[in-house]
Amino acid sequence: MHVIPLLEPVRPDLEQVMRLLHETLAQIGEPLGSELRGALGGGKCIRPALVILVGRLFSAEAVLFHKLAAAVEVLHTATLIHDDLVDGAALRRGRETLHTAWSAGVTVLVGDALLAQTAALVAELGRPRILAVFADALRAMSAGEIEQLLTAGKAQCSREGYYRRIEAKTAALCAAATEMAGILAQSREAQVAALRRFGWELGIAFQIVDDVLDFIGDEAQLGKPAGSDLRQGLVTLPVICHLEQAGDDATVEVVLAGQKDEARVQAAIEAIRASGAVEAALEEARAHVRQAREALAGVPGSDSRQMLLALADYVVERKR
Amino acid sequence: MHVIPLLEPVRPDLEQVMRLLHETLAQIGEPLGSELRGALGGGKCIRPALVILVGRLFSAEAVLFHKLAAAVEVLHTATLIHDDLVDGAALRRGRETLHTAWSAGVTVLVGDALLAQTAALVAELGRPRILAVFADALRAMSAGEIEQLLTAGKAQCSREGYYRRIEAKTAALCAAATEMAGILAQSREAQVAALRRFGWELGIAFQIVDDVLDFIGDEAQLGKPAGSDLRQGLVTLPVICHLEQAGDDATVEVVLAGQKDEARVQAAIEAIRASGAVEAALEEARAHVRQAREALAGVPGSDSRQMLLALADYVVERKR
Repeated sequence: MHVIPLLEPVRPDLEQVMRLLHETLAQIGEPLGSELRGALGGGKCIRPALVILVGRLFSAEAVLFHKLAAAVEVLHTATLIHDDLVDGAALRRGRETLHTAWSAGVTVLVGDALLAQTAALVAELGRPRILAVFADALRAMSAGEIEQLLTAGKAQCSREGYYRRIEAKTAALCAAATEMAGILAQSREAQVAALRRFGWELGIAFQIVDDVLDFIGDEAQLGKPAGSDLRQGLVTLPVICHLEQAGDDATVEVVLAGQKDEARVQAAIEAIRASGAVEAALEEARAHVRQAREALAGVPGSDSRQMLLALADYVVERKR
Repeated sequence: MHVIPLLEPVRPDLEQVMRLLHETLAQIGEPLGSELRGALGGGKCIRPALVILVGRLFSAEAVLFHKLAAAVEVLHTATLIHDDLVDGAALRRGRETLHTAWSAGVTVLVGDALLAQTAALVAELGRPRILAVFADALRAMSAGEIEQLLTAGKAQCSREGYYRRIEAKTAALCAAATEMAGILAQSREAQVAALRRFGWELGIAFQIVDDVLDFIGDEAQLGKPAGSDLRQGLVTLPVICHLEQAGDDATVEVVLAGQKDEARVQAAIEAIRASGAVEAALEEARAHVRQAREALAGVPGSDSRQMLLALADYVVERKR
């Protein structure tokens, strides 16, 4: 399996998590199980890594953390599958999305089956409080997407709207991952809160960088065409920073207003790339990484703490 | 709220469950919360009633059973919403389905939000084993619908295929409801198994009768046109019994082969109504009710036990 270099020390743990994921997918049945196995392999394993590293922080028993990490990744996959359907996305990590390869109906039901598997894994942990955090994360993610659908076009250009969206889409689950791992490790309440904060800030930074890479990355690395958010009418931080800096920019606004022929989209992408917007957005991401690092000040020092800090840095330094 | 006469003695409990459901829906936010409140009021409350009655059987603390009953009903609603989308059903209980009134995207996400609320309610019960039963039920329901989608047209005409389908669609959650209530009441293992069996058999009988009513009920009572399963290409027990008895019947087979103009569908409905198929299907439902009654032989006698037996009888005697 592909693991980013800084996570090499926990590769055996991540392989155990992957094994649990494959067992879980096998229960979905064929041919869908194989289809999903392919889709799962391509991620960066950030969320499972957060769980594993928090577990190591407290020298807790690894096997329970493997289960929790698998549960988090299965929940993440379920929401990706449903969101890609809702957004009509054709590609994910360079592969056809499930609803494109199969059908909307199959996609709805496979997502539900994965949510069931998540619940089954959480049940094995025997900790109702962890379930409550899980439930909250799923609720936040669904509510965020619902708000995005119902306000499409309107409130999406505001900075507040953008942050609310990425909090729901990414920060909620990263925060839940580190919080649940803290609960599972039976760490003190103040530490559970600090871990939640760390996951939250890291999640925000991660999503901002994802949205920046959508403008500056290349198609081969992204697994989808550059500027796909813009094509979808999704206003992300680089766009917001650009419009804030430029006051008005007809090149971009015409695309946001719905004129999405290829020449206009390319011109808008170029305008945003050429402005200071990309750097401004990255600076905001770095600020969240600093807050994430600060949150970890109160947790025990160890190799795992260093790896969590390195993971936070990686989030903004990565190129894909 | 509308309550079937035999459940009048537990009306206060069912009203508490409804109150919890409304609190839960309020968290989905407006305008969707109100939309769902309307949709929830129209059911027969069979599943919540099963939970309440099992709780009373063991004189257990009512408030926990209200929560479990609400969780079961929220899960049921989530799966109905998703299934109606997957099946393309336009009406449910005489109302426009959510995906018809809103959109497919909203429907996927509202279903997910309801699954999150289910998990939150289960977390409040503090019993991981109940979560495991819930997870199994959701897994069975999703797997059943996936199988139905992937085998559409092919294996659907067999009796085995039909039973597998209704086990997943209805028996799984009814069995889970009575099993979880038994676990919550801390009843003995043998009784938990007997309660599960009761819910399972009652669920099968309930679905068979639903499928019969689709042929013999009238549109006003059903909240949808008669024969809608046939129109959708769904082969149910009355059709299977009819084809078993008649050997071949071109009137019906031509519709199953896809020729669904109104005259042909009406002719097929009439042919099935006029045959002994309806009575044969009802006799199978009654056999399952007898097995449900037998399962209850080993649980404590009380007013609530009488009401569970009466509920089993109601399932086959009802006209809507």
